[in-house]
Amino acid sequence: MGLLLAGIFGVLSLIFAVALSISILKRDQGTERMKKIAKAIQDGALAFLLEEYRTMYLWVIIFAILIGIVISPYVAVFFALGTIFSTLSGFFGMYIATRASVRTTNAATKSTGEALFVAFSGGSVMGLTVTGLGVVGSLLTYFISVKFLPQVSPLVAVTGYSIGASFVALFARVGGGIYTKAADVGADLVGKVEAGIPEDDPRNPAVIADNVGDNVGDIAGMGADLYESYVGSITAAIILGTLTLGNNASTYIYLITGYGILSSIVGVISSLVASKINIAPQKALNIGSVIANIFAIIVFFIISKGIPNGTNYFVAIITGLLIGLAIGFITQYFTSANPIVEIAKSSSEGGAATTILSGMAVGMESTFIPLLLIAIGIIISYRFSGLFGIALAGLGMLSTLGISLSVDAYGPIADNAGGIAEMSHLSHEVRERTDTLDALGNTTAAMGKGFAIGSAALTALALFSSYIQSMQMDTLNVMSPYTISGMFVGTSLPFLFSALAIMAVSRSAGYMVEEVRRQFREIPGLMSGKADPDYKKCISISTKGALKSMILPSLIAVVSPFAGLIIFMSYGKEFTGGLLAGALLSGVILAIYMANAGAAWDNAKKFIEQGNFGGKGSEAHRASVVGDTVGDPLKDTAGPSINILIKLMTTISLLFGPHIVKFLVK
Amino acid sequence: MGLLLAGIFGVLSLIFAVALSISILKRDQGTERMKKIAKAIQDGALAFLLEEYRTMYLWVIIFAILIGIVISPYVAVFFALGTIFSTLSGFFGMYIATRASVRTTNAATKSTGEALFVAFSGGSVMGLTVTGLGVVGSLLTYFISVKFLPQVSPLVAVTGYSIGASFVALFARVGGGIYTKAADVGADLVGKVEAGIPEDDPRNPAVIADNVGDNVGDIAGMGADLYESYVGSITAAIILGTLTLGNNASTYIYLITGYGILSSIVGVISSLVASKINIAPQKALNIGSVIANIFAIIVFFIISKGIPNGTNYFVAIITGLLIGLAIGFITQYFTSANPIVEIAKSSSEGGAATTILSGMAVGMESTFIPLLLIAIGIIISYRFSGLFGIALAGLGMLSTLGISLSVDAYGPIADNAGGIAEMSHLSHEVRERTDTLDALGNTTAAMGKGFAIGSAALTALALFSSYIQSMQMDTLNVMSPYTISGMFVGTSLPFLFSALAIMAVSRSAGYMVEEVRRQFREIPGLMSGKADPDYKKCISISTKGALKSMILPSLIAVVSPFAGLIIFMSYGKEFTGGLLAGALLSGVILAIYMANAGAAWDNAKKFIEQGNFGGKGSEAHRASVVGDTVGDPLKDTAGPSINILIKLMTTISLLFGPHIVKFLVK
Repeated sequence: MGLLLAGIFGVLSLIFAVALSISILKRDQGTERMKKIAKAIQDGALAFLLEEYRTMYLWVIIFAILIGIVISPYVAVFFALGTIFSTLSGFFGMYIATRASVRTTNAATKSTGEALFVAFSGGSVMGLTVTGLGVVGSLLTYFISVKFLPQVSPLVAVTGYSIGASFVALFARVGGGIYTKAADVGADLVGKVEAGIPEDDPRNPAVIADNVGDNVGDIAGMGADLYESYVGSITAAIILGTLTLGNNASTYIYLITGYGILSSIVGVISSLVASKINIAPQKALNIGSVIANIFAIIVFFIISKGIPNGTNYFVAIITGLLIGLAIGFITQYFTSANPIVEIAKSSSEGGAATTILSGMAVGMESTFIPLLLIAIGIIISYRFSGLFGIALAGLGMLSTLGISLSVDAYGPIADNAGGIAEMSHLSHEVRERTDTLDALGNTTAAMGKGFAIGSAALTALALFSSYIQSMQMDTLNVMSPYTISGMFVGTSLPFLFSALAIMAVSRSAGYMVEEVRRQFREIPGLMSGKADPDYKKCISISTKGALKSMILPSLIAVVSPFAGLIIFMSYGKEFTGGLLAGALLSGVILAIYMANAGAAWDNAKKFIEQGNFGGKGSEAHRASVVGDTVGDPLKDTAGPSINILIKLMTTISLLFGPHIVKFLVK
Repeated sequence: MGLLLAGIFGVLSLIFAVALSISILKRDQGTERMKKIAKAIQDGALAFLLEEYRTMYLWVIIFAILIGIVISPYVAVFFALGTIFSTLSGFFGMYIATRASVRTTNAATKSTGEALFVAFSGGSVMGLTVTGLGVVGSLLTYFISVKFLPQVSPLVAVTGYSIGASFVALFARVGGGIYTKAADVGADLVGKVEAGIPEDDPRNPAVIADNVGDNVGDIAGMGADLYESYVGSITAAIILGTLTLGNNASTYIYLITGYGILSSIVGVISSLVASKINIAPQKALNIGSVIANIFAIIVFFIISKGIPNGTNYFVAIITGLLIGLAIGFITQYFTSANPIVEIAKSSSEGGAATTILSGMAVGMESTFIPLLLIAIGIIISYRFSGLFGIALAGLGMLSTLGISLSVDAYGPIADNAGGIAEMSHLSHEVRERTDTLDALGNTTAAMGKGFAIGSAALTALALFSSYIQSMQMDTLNVMSPYTISGMFVGTSLPFLFSALAIMAVSRSAGYMVEEVRRQFREIPGLMSGKADPDYKKCISISTKGALKSMILPSLIAVVSPFAGLIIFMSYGKEFTGGLLAGALLSGVILAIYMANAGAAWDNAKKFIEQGNFGGKGSEAHRASVVGDTVGDPLKDTAGPSINILIKLMTTISLLFGPHIVKFLVK
């Protein structure tokens, strides 16, 4: 019953997404110039994604074969299903988003409400697709393995599926993240700082690459990323639930997931209606979130009431939901309000260096309360429902992902709509409307990141517990030299991973800067607007940089669990346990630090651009652009990828660990 | 016997330090102007230290009373002894250093070799004082408690003594670090970047504060810091040794420590002779280190041969020594060679933003191998000698601290000598000689930091093991929700601590910048050199900033262990265990990251100043100065303090934990 209902809600969500997509595509795209620019962005994004998939699927195939040999061919198929659904989530979401943005621009020529409606419709397609595909894929995997494959444990099956989701997400986040930030940093450094032309100015040769990047990184990358988080939280709950409660657990979990989706659909409809009747944007978005969450809480309570110990599970779920919200609010505080005024102030007083220092300090300071909240969440959910409770808290945090992702994904669409307005020489008023929507998107994005990080911590911890149990260890003792050594090495992996990602951005951005400078220098009439820049060259630099550099960091996640297990033989399970714990701890804090420092620098720059501390063009502004540029790869490349890294490392260890140990330690 | 010998070598080391001091003080200070400037620096440094001590000792007294009430008045006395010896190490070292630097400048008017001799003599005073006082204090504590205080366990006594050392070190590092970097950043930002005057130009109003800062931060701060590390490593070895071997362990440990000091004395003499006979500076310093280490290894082998299982202990010690060296070499690689060329290149290509990004990436990347080495060190030393082996490895790393600190401390003296040469308008040749010595100091400092971090990791781990044992836990299980929650919170403490330290520097530097700008604007004839700036005003800004901001971060170390133990009652020991482990893991990696990123930015700037990528005054140079400025508080304020933070948290938990638990959980 639970499975069937969840399946129905999942399919409903997908149907709704398709219906919204059709209604978006029917809309008018505006002037010829707008169409031409939108086409360039759409084609650029498509071209990159296809290249990215080609590189990525080579690794998918290799890894699938490995799973097929070591574990079982069926699990390899579930793994493949995970990769394909993940790819679809990102691809379909982005396909619609690139089409929604130009129509948002056109709608903005009429009214802000109309533009909001289109942009939010586009975002909802992403939100509904990700959650719909997530639950449908997970259900298929679970159902098939239970009904038709007695030789494959459903827990192993869902783990394989989950690894597929994480595998693609990591590549998509890293690849897309490098692409978008190389273009963004390159465009800003020469365009804004040196040439003094505004953002999205069509004279900037990197401008199309920058807009393509927003789509492949912030949209397709985010889609795959949150698909992974969503699937991960379901997987962790299924595994720990089944170990605690037996097979009944899955019914409960899929019911929660299914009704979470239904709540999101209700929320999305509410927000769409609200924007249609011209309620102020901020309110329109809030209405949907509030309705969805209240609806979800009530339904979850009713479902839980009906089963033994259900109230305890309910508490764990609600703890997750509330902790997620609380982290979101803390994130909002540190990336707005006082802290960003402080950063802006240091931009005006000491220039770039003190801007960087104060942003770093804000980012570091901002880690304390979220980690404290996560700790509290762990203790409460554990006290009520044991290890299963921790998984439930993670599930609870993401139960209404459908609505929160819709709000999240709407941001980059509004951002792109603004870019198209600028490049199409539309009136100032249009740009102002899209800017209003864009600014709103930044706030909601900060909230969304809080959820993503909090759930990653809890999900990874739940998966980590499953790993320990699957290795038949009752405890993981910090005092063992193998465990603590693993912890030291594990702690350094997110740092190493981030270093590779940041270096890739920095290097590609360097090439981009050179190319943009060259074009300004060598193409006559470019600055006066008489000649067009060579956009393709810049697109190719971002593409090459991303494809070349996304492999190595991703391999860290895949190789490190094997290395530990194989090198340390019978101590391998302890070492790898420590490795996972270390990576979890440093990964979570680094992700929070990077997300918040990056957002704080970004918003400090925006604060100055609003006319504070001298406004645009002042020394303070120049310094704040440096801060924003430094923050970009932190918050959009390295930071969000770390969440995936720690989960992928854990699920791979969980899947392969018992087999390797069995093979080596006979 | 072992104790007696160690005492003799310790006292010998102190006598030698005094003799060297006298020979330094007898030397000529040069021109009147040199004397005047040196006096200003000496007075400024003295004035700040006295203020700092006044603030600090208030907290020392409060904490001593707390120890006296909760633990025992005798332990409070040992704690006080630790604080006093630590203060003396920093104070005496700095007293001589400020006097050695002006004499080094004067010696540099004759020859580089002569200048090296004086500067290295000054450094040796520090090296010999720190190790001499360290071993004498530890011996006194141990001996008195064993012989005269049957009611006080010698292990508790040395823990109290060790907490005293760490307590003062933390304040000195944070306070001195904020002082020196506020002045340095302030002086650089306006002087170098805006006014375009060289470093140490007497027209810069912050120049005296900057030079005072070098002394109170880099010298007095470093002295207290390494005194703490040294005492910590001895303490950890004594505790774990006694728990494993009984009271015989202390004889062995003090023998190792004593002969380590003797080896250092031999090394110092070798280097002094080498510089006297005009061997090239790099070689002269290397000779001492090589001789000391070979001598130590041979003696350690002979000592170890004579006791049961001694060879196993010897392996652990040598593992520590070699791992320390290896970390030093890795540090050297990441802060010179290719990585800094890459950073310099990104300074020239993308400006300040890519400079910051590539430096961050280098810093993050540089953490992997050291942590891997530490992990290997843990496993090897554990396999040979159990937990005691880990403590021995830490002891081994620092056994020849006498010589390595002498080399380390010589750097800032040479740096100051250069400053005095500049301010005294001495010939270009003199400045070039001191610059040669200064550059050499940077390389050796990187090595020294590798040792400090490696030993901190091992010492903290050994102390952490003692904590677990003292709380009568056999294991610390990561799977316990209290442990893992503690780990999450603990992980965030070094970040929070660093945030506070960096913010303090950034804020004080902001005031400094304003003041320097004001003086340039308002004092007529300042730029043309006709009027003197108001140095005192800048000194007062640094002083106030340091004193105000050093309390809060230091309190984190003191309060957090109590909070965890008290809030979580019977689960408090697990939570605090997790807290310590989390802080250890994130503290070590953050310390390495900050030290290496900071040094890499510094050296990238120096590389450009040597004429690469456009040299001084180019855009690339301007960008590299931003990198250097960002790196300053990382490598000299927050980074080195974290080492102390994690050990202080651990020793406080170790001392108070059992009492709190006994009191609360009855």
